[in-house]
Amino acid sequence: MEELTERVRAFAQERNWERFHTPKNLAMALAGEVGELLAELQWLTPEQSAAVMTDEEIGPRVRAEIGDVTIYLVRLADVLGIDLAQAGLDKLADSGRRYTVEAARNSAAKIGDHPTAS
Amino acid sequence: MEELTERVRAFAQERNWERFHTPKNLAMALAGEVGELLAELQWLTPEQSAAVMTDEEIGPRVRAEIGDVTIYLVRLADVLGIDLAQAGLDKLADSGRRYTVEAARNSAAKIGDHPTAS
Amino acid sequence: MEELTERVRAFAQERNWERFHTPKNLAMALAGEVGELLAELQWLTPEQSAAVMTDEEIGPRVRAEIGDVTIYLVRLADVLGIDLAQAGLDKLADSGRRYTVEAARNSAAKIGDHPTAS
Amino acid sequence: MEELTERVRAFAQERNWERFHTPKNLAMALAGEVGELLAELQWLTPEQSAAVMTDEEIGPRVRAEIGDVTIYLVRLADVLGIDLAQAGLDKLADSGRRYTVEAARNSAAKIGDHPTAS
Repeated sequence: MEELTERVRAFAQERNWERFHTPKNLAMALAGEVGELLAELQWLTPEQSAAVMTDEEIGPRVRAEIGDVTIYLVRLADVLGIDLAQAGLDKLADSGRRYTVEAARNSAAKIGDHPTAS
Repeated sequence: MEELTERVRAFAQERNWERFHTPKNLAMALAGEVGELLAELQWLTPEQSAAVMTDEEIGPRVRAEIGDVTIYLVRLADVLGIDLAQAGLDKLADSGRRYTVEAARNSAAKIGDHPTAS
Repeated sequence: MEELTERVRAFAQERNWERFHTPKNLAMALAGEVGELLAELQWLTPEQSAAVMTDEEIGPRVRAEIGDVTIYLVRLADVLGIDLAQAGLDKLADSGRRYTVEAARNSAAKIGDHPTAS
Repeated sequence: MEELTERVRAFAQERNWERFHTPKNLAMALAGEVGELLAELQWLTPEQSAAVMTDEEIGPRVRAEIGDVTIYLVRLADVLGIDLAQAGLDKLADSGRRYTVEAARNSAAKIGDHPTAS
């Protein structure tokens, strides 16, 4: 990921795009790419989505969209000075305190029994 | 990022959440977290967004949202069997062929002169 | 919808929020609210999502999120001077020319046989 | 909007797409179209975004994306049995109780002084 971070930074510098790369603009670009990812998956059944990488046509498109999402997330973190892995680990530790294994296992199997980990 | 991938996987396994983690559901969760990130930045000026990490209140919230986004992206890639960094590098190489440095530098400074790298 | 448009406009004026309501900021706010809507639906099966309005807890939340999405879409259209219904009708006519009934009915029932109407 | 609702319903019926149109799938499609809208606005300055409808190239694209967003929102509301205007009016009344005119006008002009109306 460090190599990707540096290459994306160079990519932006070479094209004189740094002025466009505010956190606000990059967050919008990230959301736009996530929207394209959703578009690839939106009409699939759960089973079709689970097997999407075996589809010759849609699999590579999904991988490319995830590549785009990663590019903008890496760039956003670089601009903000955030270590992505550490931010994820810190948030996961926080979520672990809020959604304990016991509570999750004991929850009734009702609609929406998976809490949003936010 | 490998450590994060493994910890998120264990987190889901321990809570018996694997049945929820289809690519389709995880892409929605990713989009939901990106939406929360947008909500933190939406009313800021470009200048305020550039300095957002120096704000004692909003900075930590932005970092936490980016942590959430990273968690779901890592989990989605794990479920799909995709190497995030490699997917990003491949897409960046593709974008480099489409948006050459020469073309980017020569483009007139008109509205929308930054092509969407998608 | 006209009444809603006028009330949202008055709501913003009374609070002196017009300076925040650029098309860019409103599009971000719209995306943020759609993200909250996704969060309500993300872990549901297709069948659970089809019955979501009968759930006493999630149903009202879904309706409230759709209310928020509508508020920001109406406000964005007001700021841009766009008639929402007419924009939808024009786009639907365009989509009808691109995805004819014959082509849709004859398409093989393969993965992704529903084209993205974009 | 009623005419649009009926036409979108007929559009889906004629193409045998009703089986795809679960609330979950339609919410994803809505998010995908909002993502395309963001992509049109993401690199613009606030001033450029305010004048976007006067741009001969981007203006019609923004209108078309808003048409797509409206189509999916109207379809989602139809499937859920929700009256969009009433859902918006109800949510606006709720927001009015939470963000009073007095509180909004008295808030200090600090970063993020526009509360998220969610």
